[in-house]
Amino acid sequence: MPPAPGDREARREEVSEAVWRVLAEKGFGGLTLRAVAAAMGVSTGMLMHYFPTKRALLTHALDLLESRTADRPRRPHPAPGLATVRAMLLDILPLTPDDTARNRVWVSSWDLSLADDDLATAQAARYTRLRSTLHPHLEAARDLGELPPTANPDRLAASAVAFTHGLVVQALFDPAHFPRDVQITLLDGFLASVGLWAPDDQP
Amino acid sequence: MPPAPGDREARREEVSEAVWRVLAEKGFGGLTLRAVAAAMGVSTGMLMHYFPTKRALLTHALDLLESRTADRPRRPHPAPGLATVRAMLLDILPLTPDDTARNRVWVSSWDLSLADDDLATAQAARYTRLRSTLHPHLEAARDLGELPPTANPDRLAASAVAFTHGLVVQALFDPAHFPRDVQITLLDGFLASVGLWAPDDQP
Repeated sequence: MPPAPGDREARREEVSEAVWRVLAEKGFGGLTLRAVAAAMGVSTGMLMHYFPTKRALLTHALDLLESRTADRPRRPHPAPGLATVRAMLLDILPLTPDDTARNRVWVSSWDLSLADDDLATAQAARYTRLRSTLHPHLEAARDLGELPPTANPDRLAASAVAFTHGLVVQALFDPAHFPRDVQITLLDGFLASVGLWAPDDQP
Repeated sequence: MPPAPGDREARREEVSEAVWRVLAEKGFGGLTLRAVAAAMGVSTGMLMHYFPTKRALLTHALDLLESRTADRPRRPHPAPGLATVRAMLLDILPLTPDDTARNRVWVSSWDLSLADDDLATAQAARYTRLRSTLHPHLEAARDLGELPPTANPDRLAASAVAFTHGLVVQALFDPAHFPRDVQITLLDGFLASVGLWAPDDQP
């Protein structure tokens, strides 16, 4: 008898959880049917039902990374200008265990993406979107006098993304050196240096 | 008859070149005996003589990355302070094809390193060393009045490394958007924002 649709859904969720646990611990380099099966305590044969090929497993893992990133909780935008830029950049940093796992999987995905033209194009588009999302808030910051009138929102968006992602990488490798408060202090220092702006003390 | 020592040395060099070509094109995720053999036009059996295990191949690849990074040409230090910090950060960015290949291999190595405690510790130590190398030049910059008297060289070193490595990643994925002059302009903008300092126009 085939499983009831509700069971099938629950099992699918369980498979996704196991894929995520493997990614968070071993990265894309350690993502194999064998590792996911071991994480679930099932046979690789059972998993082949979900992922007939390695490519199917990778595609599912990348979709999972996208959806977990899209669905993550985000800070409200406190006020126009640099305060909103700050909230958006804090949403990226590895400040909680969930944020850390997600960032670790993103950094791990870069090896895969750099080796595959389609994935590299998708990743470049993701960076373009992220810069575009920051852009209007940097323009608002300039119009509000939080940035010098000569500030260039395009360049500042690229710089803010650069700073934030480079901080992610350092923090992933050395969490003891980059706990939550240090990451926030560094981000505030960065924003204070580009702007004419001092952040609130509250995170 | 065994090959003469000179031949053995030449062959070893040829193997390293092939490992590097595979890394630069496919990253650590695509580094296999089969791929290196194909790049050399030899059998995988011949390569097993050099790399009896996958681990041996990985270790050689990581050593190669270290040595190519240590031996790369570097800019002279033009003057104490931020001009030297600038030269050191320019030495990191993917401004030439060789720099791009090396950075691409570094970024690719992060997946591997995050999944292995020893490699992660080594990478964290590498970041600590890089920050320490920048530190005295940031202190000099402060003493020269190129940075505000309140500037914190520890934080600025972490920020400069963050900014530079995040720029590396964006530039690797989108080289058309981040050609040499754009990378240099962004770096100079970053240095100008942290300092009281305007860079020379020459790269």
